[in-house]
Amino acid sequence: MRKNTLRKIVADGGTIVNGWLAIPNSYSAEVMAHQGWDAVTIDLQHGPVDFQTAVTMLQAISTTSAVPMARVPWNDAAIMMKLLDAGAYGLICPMINTKEEAEQFVNFCRYPPLGTRSMGPNRAVQYGGADYWQGANEEVILLAMIETRKGVENLDAILSVKGIDGVYVGPSDLSMSLGKPPTLDPSDAEVVSLIELIAKKVRAKGLIAGVHCDGSKTALRRFGQGYQLATILNDARLMATAAAQAVKEVKGGAPVAAAKTY
Amino acid sequence: MRKNTLRKIVADGGTIVNGWLAIPNSYSAEVMAHQGWDAVTIDLQHGPVDFQTAVTMLQAISTTSAVPMARVPWNDAAIMMKLLDAGAYGLICPMINTKEEAEQFVNFCRYPPLGTRSMGPNRAVQYGGADYWQGANEEVILLAMIETRKGVENLDAILSVKGIDGVYVGPSDLSMSLGKPPTLDPSDAEVVSLIELIAKKVRAKGLIAGVHCDGSKTALRRFGQGYQLATILNDARLMATAAAQAVKEVKGGAPVAAAKTY
Amino acid sequence: MRKNTLRKIVADGGTIVNGWLAIPNSYSAEVMAHQGWDAVTIDLQHGPVDFQTAVTMLQAISTTSAVPMARVPWNDAAIMMKLLDAGAYGLICPMINTKEEAEQFVNFCRYPPLGTRSMGPNRAVQYGGADYWQGANEEVILLAMIETRKGVENLDAILSVKGIDGVYVGPSDLSMSLGKPPTLDPSDAEVVSLIELIAKKVRAKGLIAGVHCDGSKTALRRFGQGYQLATILNDARLMATAAAQAVKEVKGGAPVAAAKTY
Amino acid sequence: MRKNTLRKIVADGGTIVNGWLAIPNSYSAEVMAHQGWDAVTIDLQHGPVDFQTAVTMLQAISTTSAVPMARVPWNDAAIMMKLLDAGAYGLICPMINTKEEAEQFVNFCRYPPLGTRSMGPNRAVQYGGADYWQGANEEVILLAMIETRKGVENLDAILSVKGIDGVYVGPSDLSMSLGKPPTLDPSDAEVVSLIELIAKKVRAKGLIAGVHCDGSKTALRRFGQGYQLATILNDARLMATAAAQAVKEVKGGAPVAAAKTY
Amino acid sequence: MRKNTLRKIVADGGTIVNGWLAIPNSYSAEVMAHQGWDAVTIDLQHGPVDFQTAVTMLQAISTTSAVPMARVPWNDAAIMMKLLDAGAYGLICPMINTKEEAEQFVNFCRYPPLGTRSMGPNRAVQYGGADYWQGANEEVILLAMIETRKGVENLDAILSVKGIDGVYVGPSDLSMSLGKPPTLDPSDAEVVSLIELIAKKVRAKGLIAGVHCDGSKTALRRFGQGYQLATILNDARLMATAAAQAVKEVKGGAPVAAAKTY
Amino acid sequence: MRKNTLRKIVADGGTIVNGWLAIPNSYSAEVMAHQGWDAVTIDLQHGPVDFQTAVTMLQAISTTSAVPMARVPWNDAAIMMKLLDAGAYGLICPMINTKEEAEQFVNFCRYPPLGTRSMGPNRAVQYGGADYWQGANEEVILLAMIETRKGVENLDAILSVKGIDGVYVGPSDLSMSLGKPPTLDPSDAEVVSLIELIAKKVRAKGLIAGVHCDGSKTALRRFGQGYQLATILNDARLMATAAAQAVKEVKGGAPVAAAKTY
Repeated sequence: MRKNTLRKIVADGGTIVNGWLAIPNSYSAEVMAHQGWDAVTIDLQHGPVDFQTAVTMLQAISTTSAVPMARVPWNDAAIMMKLLDAGAYGLICPMINTKEEAEQFVNFCRYPPLGTRSMGPNRAVQYGGADYWQGANEEVILLAMIETRKGVENLDAILSVKGIDGVYVGPSDLSMSLGKPPTLDPSDAEVVSLIELIAKKVRAKGLIAGVHCDGSKTALRRFGQGYQLATILNDARLMATAAAQAVKEVKGGAPVAAAKTY
Repeated sequence: MRKNTLRKIVADGGTIVNGWLAIPNSYSAEVMAHQGWDAVTIDLQHGPVDFQTAVTMLQAISTTSAVPMARVPWNDAAIMMKLLDAGAYGLICPMINTKEEAEQFVNFCRYPPLGTRSMGPNRAVQYGGADYWQGANEEVILLAMIETRKGVENLDAILSVKGIDGVYVGPSDLSMSLGKPPTLDPSDAEVVSLIELIAKKVRAKGLIAGVHCDGSKTALRRFGQGYQLATILNDARLMATAAAQAVKEVKGGAPVAAAKTY
Repeated sequence: MRKNTLRKIVADGGTIVNGWLAIPNSYSAEVMAHQGWDAVTIDLQHGPVDFQTAVTMLQAISTTSAVPMARVPWNDAAIMMKLLDAGAYGLICPMINTKEEAEQFVNFCRYPPLGTRSMGPNRAVQYGGADYWQGANEEVILLAMIETRKGVENLDAILSVKGIDGVYVGPSDLSMSLGKPPTLDPSDAEVVSLIELIAKKVRAKGLIAGVHCDGSKTALRRFGQGYQLATILNDARLMATAAAQAVKEVKGGAPVAAAKTY
Repeated sequence: MRKNTLRKIVADGGTIVNGWLAIPNSYSAEVMAHQGWDAVTIDLQHGPVDFQTAVTMLQAISTTSAVPMARVPWNDAAIMMKLLDAGAYGLICPMINTKEEAEQFVNFCRYPPLGTRSMGPNRAVQYGGADYWQGANEEVILLAMIETRKGVENLDAILSVKGIDGVYVGPSDLSMSLGKPPTLDPSDAEVVSLIELIAKKVRAKGLIAGVHCDGSKTALRRFGQGYQLATILNDARLMATAAAQAVKEVKGGAPVAAAKTY
Repeated sequence: MRKNTLRKIVADGGTIVNGWLAIPNSYSAEVMAHQGWDAVTIDLQHGPVDFQTAVTMLQAISTTSAVPMARVPWNDAAIMMKLLDAGAYGLICPMINTKEEAEQFVNFCRYPPLGTRSMGPNRAVQYGGADYWQGANEEVILLAMIETRKGVENLDAILSVKGIDGVYVGPSDLSMSLGKPPTLDPSDAEVVSLIELIAKKVRAKGLIAGVHCDGSKTALRRFGQGYQLATILNDARLMATAAAQAVKEVKGGAPVAAAKTY
Repeated sequence: MRKNTLRKIVADGGTIVNGWLAIPNSYSAEVMAHQGWDAVTIDLQHGPVDFQTAVTMLQAISTTSAVPMARVPWNDAAIMMKLLDAGAYGLICPMINTKEEAEQFVNFCRYPPLGTRSMGPNRAVQYGGADYWQGANEEVILLAMIETRKGVENLDAILSVKGIDGVYVGPSDLSMSLGKPPTLDPSDAEVVSLIELIAKKVRAKGLIAGVHCDGSKTALRRFGQGYQLATILNDARLMATAAAQAVKEVKGGAPVAAAKTY
């Protein structure tokens, strides 16, 4: 089975720069996947992307060496199994707040005996190889999103669930959960300290600490805090920001407020 | 944030004429949206419409001043959050039969602290504005479908849930639930009295009473009963009925029985 | 090979009521095809419909006994061959103004020795049968649109081209060509007389006279003038007209001006 | 309402040969549906197929006499109701392991009073007829997948649920559940005996016994064991196997290992 | 009919900043259209975009005040008429090298008596209004691409064709035609002087001078040379450049060579 | 620029086994591309495939080492340029009957100074590399279909056109052109001798001789006649033939007549 190169990066002490796809299209996915990311994640939660389109995006990413991942919309069996069958080599699941939710995530996504994932890879066999089912439990990465106060409180229990490879922090939702305005680079002391705490706990367990960022500066800071996987901006926001800047340069004045990603 | 004009219509004592889209296509959606409706609702429950197509339909509706809404297929987190992120300004959720189901509906669809909706609007920012997240809990309308005996029995409790803006009555399912044949304009005394009762209770709470109808006559009667939002027929049935009539006029004889909407 | 029932209707002295599809979707196509039309035509010229979508619409029509036809965007080899391969049992080609253009139309659409259509039916074999290629030149109907002054002037020559089955009149373009405003039911004396003349000439040759109409009344009048195939309104306009009427009935006042088809 | 011909085949003591669609496309679906299958099932669980595409595939199947069915991804209300509304005449639901899960499956898919399926058929009315709602509970076939040890242990209870028409065995998942490698034609004694046991129990109740196979030989053996519905290979594997064989015949040497279906 | 605001900008002596869409998707189109461009052009020539997708992109652009335009793949009747019917308010046609080609372009795109465009607007009526056909010849802008030596030589004749509103210069193709490497900001003296010459000639005729650029600096320089419409970069390249830059900032080293637009 | 491996195979005296895609879908394309073909060709002429879908199929093929090619529907500038821009590394053009038609084919598909292809690769840059434009004239393979008597008569002149890499014989159309029934493995003496003659003439010029076949046996025979590129069956027919065979094995009796490819 094709190896998941993200595991080697982490094992070697490296960091993973993750691209993020919100545009529901295989051409933009392919262009993005060629820009040097270690992994590229299709966002089926907050991106306007559905499964059928995501399959073509997974194909587009598979023309490169970037590892194809997906953020699923919910801790739901159907969509998670379908994305894995279609060749996603990593899943990020939102709103994992309890040990039970983490166990359910694992249960849906791991073949027996670790879980109850049903057998039937389709693109996964093309992408991963005929022995996919034998290696999938080892190669596929499962990251639980920690993005609420409750999730932080239950972090130790969540991390104790066998089959979870690490966490992915959502700073905006975490901020909201704590009663603060949403932002991908919080300055609120409590939020900041929790984000730092999460990385420490995760790394102490030997697991992967990932985080959503709003640009390269934040990403570098997060790496300094122990995070190993950082997402910069999504495709739409990279495009919109550059477009608004270009219009401003030609027209003068203030740029149009670009669509913001939280 | 762009205001939801439906709130003003209701506040002014007016009535909302709602278009209904079952054809999974953005062109027919745009044509429909230009016909003078106050709101246009995409039916993801009984229309053969899925999320990816619905996004293009939301865009099509957004070329007009009609308020874009969606009926979701189920009280399910993923699809409701995705439709809101994509810019739906109102959601109609089927089969709300208990207070707990109403609370879950609110929980998925309202940002903290009212609920646990995750932060990440995409089209919603384009359509609603950069401050969408600050106004969404106020502007987005949530209507719980009352369409079973149990739902009617629990109506007071359902209406007590903070974050619910009103109800939407499904006369066909309500009839079925009471052991009567499905129809959008019931003549059965018990069903008729329950439909009247629902409007009274909802209006007494200062909430919005909506209802599914089978034509303009039924809609006008419902307005007379206190309903403030009425759906006429869906796009497919308007088309089919007119087509069958045209064929009959040319060929003579009885029209083909048009596809019926329940 | 499956017979083209339109030929029998015409041979029996009957008339063909033709549905018209502008909505690029297979569900609306299927609903339309169930309304009793003898034929249903996908409009790839003025409908926002492209080939890939048209294939699914041909499939949808094929669930009924209505004969699937297409109006092509232009007298162009690629699209005409593709639509025939996909199972269209009739083609309407716009802007046939000269004998040479009619010959080209036939050349692209008829197998040797009548034309140079290339061999490779795909859906046509599913729909028509394994012996499709042997019967296609007999079963497929080719109608040349007469919609300019030049086309009328060259009508005799056009009708003399072997392989042409008849004509299809476009009253709006014909009006425009004569310097009159576009309308599907012209009252201008010159246009009216030309429309009558075309039917006479076509019928005198034993060919099929078809015409685009704006409703059942016009269609019946055209049948009285000798036309054998009449199109009523397209799907989008049937829907829009009915929707605008419904909105008016509920809201009062004048209906929104529905999208007009010319 | 159109009759479900599968019921008659079973009543007459016959066997059902079932085609299986994993390619998310209406053209391949139509070609497959023409190859003589009694039923054709769209796989929304392990095929990369989503609802919107499945609708066009249901249309394609409906151009033939093969009965359109779907395997749903999960025991989930939304997708099951949508597929039924779109005209599926049979549903196969994975991972039914308990009586409660079987009851939920029935509840979502049967109209009152048997279940709580909501009224609103769309394509189902086109395909099945205007009286669809009156006959749907009788005509639509519901098959519960038995594919875990727990499912086998609870088989009697599952079969006792009114509204369940039979079972569909998934040999690969059943093998995995028992700690054996996945295969569609197990040779492990325990798995083999369970597969035989399931057929006997199901037939004893007068219900339908279905099973997933890997080719015609296995299917014939299953028929001998009492199974009445057998699936051969899916469209993609039929194609891939034939392609790999053709390449081998021309190039010599061993064929490329074709994508395997479990 | 809705006015084409680009005409007013030009009449007022202003300049038009044009966005360019190569990603075949309506969501990215909508995000781009919100960034402050005066016009947004869908590239059906060198973008991987086909008509059916372009329709949804035109809808997306129509949610904003940016003027929707399209670059067509070729001087071909079918695609040009279809895009105009779908509501494009401007067309850019490649490779206009002779007066005859310019006349053909006008002939296909202008209603009689100026041309022979066939009557049948669909989205154009929704977007432009019911009187679209009466104003279309005035409002729709037609720009002929001058991008070969021959085109420059025939510029005067091309500009003399009634119905042409101006030109659009393609610096890469013009360079290639002159035997120079393709670039959107040529430094070759001959190419530079021709680009300057074209603007002068076009402006002298009172027509619109447009040009393809590779960024804001080039656009500003072109405006200084008399050009009134300038395209910056397309959506895909804006995105790719920003992505490659972000990756570089995090990873260090040289950015991946972004996909270049010529 | 990425090398076209087909050139090396031919240079080394080898033969090219070509897969053929008629199913308009990227998943089936990816499965096919993994079966060991040297090249895989998307059929936009007789397959129900349009450009937008073909782009996703090119992406799917690009996940493998098979060389992506396309058969275009016609000798038309727009579609040929678009497919090349999207990364097709070879084009097969139907119905090249004269030297002029061959020159037009080259003119549209080769960059200056060899032709007038317009500059603007999109996927081609992702797939081929940033220096695509510099190598494209060398790497892209252009095959002219010889499939009429006239084409054979003009073969020498056609082969003399610089930029043509070889021919591709269509035995069905060639048979029809000679008044014989269409078949991919003709036994008619005249057709047989012409097919042999074409290979000889093409090879004598040092060009590539390709041919459409109906299976591995025919392909091997053609290789023996000097052909270097042979297409077996298309995806749909491989699937249909295998399906019909499987049904027959289970049901007994004669297989359903599979959809035939000519």
